[in-house]
Amino acid sequence: MGFWKSLFSSSDAAAASPVTPLDGSVNGTGDRSGNEPRIFFSTDRDIDLYELEELCDAVGWARRPLRKVKKAIEHSFLVTSMWQQRGNTKRLIGFARATSDHAFNATIWDVVVHPEFQGKGLGKALMKYTIKKLRSEDISNITLFADPQVVNFYRSMGFMPDPEGIKGMFWYPD
Amino acid sequence: MGFWKSLFSSSDAAAASPVTPLDGSVNGTGDRSGNEPRIFFSTDRDIDLYELEELCDAVGWARRPLRKVKKAIEHSFLVTSMWQQRGNTKRLIGFARATSDHAFNATIWDVVVHPEFQGKGLGKALMKYTIKKLRSEDISNITLFADPQVVNFYRSMGFMPDPEGIKGMFWYPD
Repeated sequence: MGFWKSLFSSSDAAAASPVTPLDGSVNGTGDRSGNEPRIFFSTDRDIDLYELEELCDAVGWARRPLRKVKKAIEHSFLVTSMWQQRGNTKRLIGFARATSDHAFNATIWDVVVHPEFQGKGLGKALMKYTIKKLRSEDISNITLFADPQVVNFYRSMGFMPDPEGIKGMFWYPD
Repeated sequence: MGFWKSLFSSSDAAAASPVTPLDGSVNGTGDRSGNEPRIFFSTDRDIDLYELEELCDAVGWARRPLRKVKKAIEHSFLVTSMWQQRGNTKRLIGFARATSDHAFNATIWDVVVHPEFQGKGLGKALMKYTIKKLRSEDISNITLFADPQVVNFYRSMGFMPDPEGIKGMFWYPD
């Protein structure tokens, strides 16, 4: 997986060109001090469900029962979150999760970036972090279902729609 | 979920019109005796990996490391298998599995029916059994990625390609 090393050679900051310092550390403290905000990523599942709901509200998603959201987080293979930290305060500004068989396939769901933080390369950074984590677990087939307005975003990340004519399909009851 | 009851009201046999008696019982013994073959379904994960490999060989799939297949089966949310039983002998003739977050989404993978048993409605019966099991676990969003030659098969089962423009996408490394 040499290609991977070069893609994520130093830090995610370089790849994502965000407006704020950025690293992929989990609960990292960094080497900065003071109140300058920084962005960091985490795979910690200990996410406040109300804070997550607020984030999803901000992008206009339909509300879902928190009990089920909790269960889905517990049973996702990977949960990635993106945070803005100022001093001792951190704010959830992005989220994604993936289901998987832990061997071949993963499917990414619920990718969200707070509107205030969109257009800064952070969605891309969140996805790169998520892909990196999945690849580090030896998952070779990474898939997702993209709404029409984000197909080009995912395409720019290396996702291909309908490769070799493979169709994403959803079951609807009669 | 009244619609469901009507869809699977009596037995999967009626829905699938297969050539052999069919029920959805798990390791059921049925009420038949003698050597008349019968088909049954199971969610038991205790599947002989070599027998599964033989089944996948029969449809021409590329071989995969059994260690990874074992892991994938362990970490799938649901594993369904279809068997032909003659007396005390049973033969694996179909297989499917699904990953899931146990709450909202499931994705069906590795659907296979032995060529000798294709064209008899058994693939449909296997899928109906799989969908029924997922629905009984309160999964509302059932998805899959279909090769071009089976898109119409899945369409006939109630799966819709690209609903509302949603695209199935696969990630490829640069």
